[in-house]
Amino acid sequence: MCRFIAYHGDAIYLEDLIATPRHSLVKQSLCAEQARTVTQGDGFGIGWYGERDEPAVYREVMPAWSDENLLALAATVRSGLFFAHVRAATAGGIARQNCHPFRHGRWMFMHNGQIGGYAQLRRALEARLPDALYALRRGATDSELLFLLTLARIDDGVAPQDAVRRVFDETVALMQARGIEEPLRMAAALTDGRRLHAFRLSSDDAPPTLYRCRGRSGTVVASEPLHREGDEGDWVPMRHGETLSAGALDH
Amino acid sequence: MCRFIAYHGDAIYLEDLIATPRHSLVKQSLCAEQARTVTQGDGFGIGWYGERDEPAVYREVMPAWSDENLLALAATVRSGLFFAHVRAATAGGIARQNCHPFRHGRWMFMHNGQIGGYAQLRRALEARLPDALYALRRGATDSELLFLLTLARIDDGVAPQDAVRRVFDETVALMQARGIEEPLRMAAALTDGRRLHAFRLSSDDAPPTLYRCRGRSGTVVASEPLHREGDEGDWVPMRHGETLSAGALDH
Amino acid sequence: MCRFIAYHGDAIYLEDLIATPRHSLVKQSLCAEQARTVTQGDGFGIGWYGERDEPAVYREVMPAWSDENLLALAATVRSGLFFAHVRAATAGGIARQNCHPFRHGRWMFMHNGQIGGYAQLRRALEARLPDALYALRRGATDSELLFLLTLARIDDGVAPQDAVRRVFDETVALMQARGIEEPLRMAAALTDGRRLHAFRLSSDDAPPTLYRCRGRSGTVVASEPLHREGDEGDWVPMRHGETLSAGALDH
Amino acid sequence: MCRFIAYHGDAIYLEDLIATPRHSLVKQSLCAEQARTVTQGDGFGIGWYGERDEPAVYREVMPAWSDENLLALAATVRSGLFFAHVRAATAGGIARQNCHPFRHGRWMFMHNGQIGGYAQLRRALEARLPDALYALRRGATDSELLFLLTLARIDDGVAPQDAVRRVFDETVALMQARGIEEPLRMAAALTDGRRLHAFRLSSDDAPPTLYRCRGRSGTVVASEPLHREGDEGDWVPMRHGETLSAGALDH
Repeated sequence: MCRFIAYHGDAIYLEDLIATPRHSLVKQSLCAEQARTVTQGDGFGIGWYGERDEPAVYREVMPAWSDENLLALAATVRSGLFFAHVRAATAGGIARQNCHPFRHGRWMFMHNGQIGGYAQLRRALEARLPDALYALRRGATDSELLFLLTLARIDDGVAPQDAVRRVFDETVALMQARGIEEPLRMAAALTDGRRLHAFRLSSDDAPPTLYRCRGRSGTVVASEPLHREGDEGDWVPMRHGETLSAGALDH
Repeated sequence: MCRFIAYHGDAIYLEDLIATPRHSLVKQSLCAEQARTVTQGDGFGIGWYGERDEPAVYREVMPAWSDENLLALAATVRSGLFFAHVRAATAGGIARQNCHPFRHGRWMFMHNGQIGGYAQLRRALEARLPDALYALRRGATDSELLFLLTLARIDDGVAPQDAVRRVFDETVALMQARGIEEPLRMAAALTDGRRLHAFRLSSDDAPPTLYRCRGRSGTVVASEPLHREGDEGDWVPMRHGETLSAGALDH
Repeated sequence: MCRFIAYHGDAIYLEDLIATPRHSLVKQSLCAEQARTVTQGDGFGIGWYGERDEPAVYREVMPAWSDENLLALAATVRSGLFFAHVRAATAGGIARQNCHPFRHGRWMFMHNGQIGGYAQLRRALEARLPDALYALRRGATDSELLFLLTLARIDDGVAPQDAVRRVFDETVALMQARGIEEPLRMAAALTDGRRLHAFRLSSDDAPPTLYRCRGRSGTVVASEPLHREGDEGDWVPMRHGETLSAGALDH
Repeated sequence: MCRFIAYHGDAIYLEDLIATPRHSLVKQSLCAEQARTVTQGDGFGIGWYGERDEPAVYREVMPAWSDENLLALAATVRSGLFFAHVRAATAGGIARQNCHPFRHGRWMFMHNGQIGGYAQLRRALEARLPDALYALRRGATDSELLFLLTLARIDDGVAPQDAVRRVFDETVALMQARGIEEPLRMAAALTDGRRLHAFRLSSDDAPPTLYRCRGRSGTVVASEPLHREGDEGDWVPMRHGETLSAGALDH
């Protein structure tokens, strides 16, 4: 289990969500309140869009709470579209390649949750990747694999918000065909640098927590409410199965 | 605040204390029960004596719970005298140089606690170091400084167990002279590769926790009981002000 | 391209080969003389056998020359069978999971060289792995893959020294079938904790350098001669296609 | 010895100097041509000014050439004033705290060179720091110390370009008083976020190399010419003792 935030709106400093709020993502890395694991200390990552189509991604294996680089970056970089993620490793070991967000071209993805029976399914899922995406595989996580499978569907012409759901459905079908009884649970965020898509999905009735907040400057999606000083908007739990999409026209 | 263990006795695998027990040091790094901070994820270190007079020290800035090297080392290395420490940083930043145990020649030291008003005292304390030890300063922690001050007293001819206590008393006196009201609290362990000395000291009535256990294979000192399977000995809280010394003749 | 050493014989300190010689492995990491890249600074690893069947492996993404832990370990640990490797990354990115030696159970493997056209071949090679070994894949290197393919052949009953050669031949055949003209070059070492096997193989006439030296204490295999003070044995270049096997009975 | 670049002018992508040129700083980290050490692989750092008075600093102990975060940051961040530095450690060990640039408030500093006889001088130099700056000391390098001494002079009212030279003169005087015959050599850069000051100084006739280049977009100072594609300006060696100052009015 992990914790993450995604933002789309006017350009703000990354620290406004990552470090400053009372229950900021950095604080959640040390002490999450709604996750199955209290500590999310197995690496972290941030990704943001500047003036180019491709985002910058900074990923590190140290805990977010102890990384001075993260605080310095978050205090200087402003962006209108960014992701941040703190990791509690379930599969794949500690490595930057296993940290979120994952990036390919202008696409960025992050994930919280787990594919039930992943060790049994990994091979079958990787086999579904087209050659070009197979070659991009760097780590060993289920999350990177879900991202590559999503890119494959998008290459097929499926709309981004439908692609994630399609991968979810196909993976659940595969799990059922193999008799895997553990659930597939995922909170996820995907963006192409223009629109932000967030998802709360589960094959059982216990998807990971995910909240949305529509404030003055833009839309925030977060695993747990950030409790910002003078929070102008409400933190609304996303429904099981809900997809949120936010773009420049929405603000 | 940090957590640590020290062992002296027959050669055992490091994992027997670090990784295997139900409340092993690695588990304490993720979830301590008697520390002011739950998480001790700001680096760790182990140090042990092999066939030479000088110990090996392995220190790393990652959390102990996520370091595969630590588990591999602890499963292969056997020693009759070793230290292990997990850190929750209070001063000095995240760096290997700030991780315990500290080593100089055949000496090794580790510490849990804090010098009250350290930022004000650091300069005066460093000024007390003789030139040769001043030159060894690598990091910025109060712990490394307490170690160097102890070595200075030992060079003066003071017995090891008295040297730590002497440094404690001198530091408290300096704090009082400066009107510092915060306490000096320390649990510490010191060894020259032959005898193990452990200390539970505080200028107020709340020293960090420290327990001793005399088992079949040897003596363990630990910040928190390890609850080993079939623990043959009892975990006895050390008294406030107590010093323990264990050597080869004691077993 | 990388540099490595392997040792089998009487127990010696790891530093006797890794750090002390005039052209030690640590010095080769900063300035190799017979490699296509001068600097081997993309991580390193050591692995050694103690009293148990399984070896300890310590791998790190920093350069070998700047890692204080490595020097401390090498000065304290003695072993009669150990590997050490410094990496110049060709494929797979910088991560501990991509550092050598690779370990599985009591087996250990390291490699210097490259599979020509690896990006095109990776999928076909991974498809050859049986399920149990496929699930062990952690990184993205051709080296880890060659190790897993070798284990698969050993599981089939092939002798270790033949298994590496078999994997070499099969990979070359696959490359030819795909019209890949880049060569497969490999210097490699494999051990089960009892016998050491070393290989110098290439599909063209330019295999990576590999030397063997039979000294008083045991057998050393190294990418480049170490020029030890008072080197008692000669450094003999292994022939193209040569396999060396050394075990306890040989000393 | 280290290598560095500093830039002041119109906002450009950091990669335009750090990664893209034929002899970019990243390439110099692997293979410097005019340094006493070929490899500058003991960590690196970048610092830049955004919209706030204080710069962001990203420092890492890995080599610059293998850090994916660095490339991603340099491809996304644009700035009109930035520093970048690759380190070959001479004193102080491998740690982020020992990596350049050093920052305090809106000030940033980096350095290439060495204080002769530093181990003997360190104590006397640290004693000159006023309390507030003494408390900021985090690492063990001569470079961080030169920065803090410079800040002390600036606090005294000395102009920045004179402050560095004053510290240089005072340090040389101290070295002579102690009979130290090794030279003090330094190439350095200092900025307050508005003006860039660069220095090439030595107590003997062999200061570290330093070049300046006045191009269309702004002023570059670099340890070695970068040989950019279509380099519009000339790379002029700075004279021994020369100070360069560049500010917004100069462009």
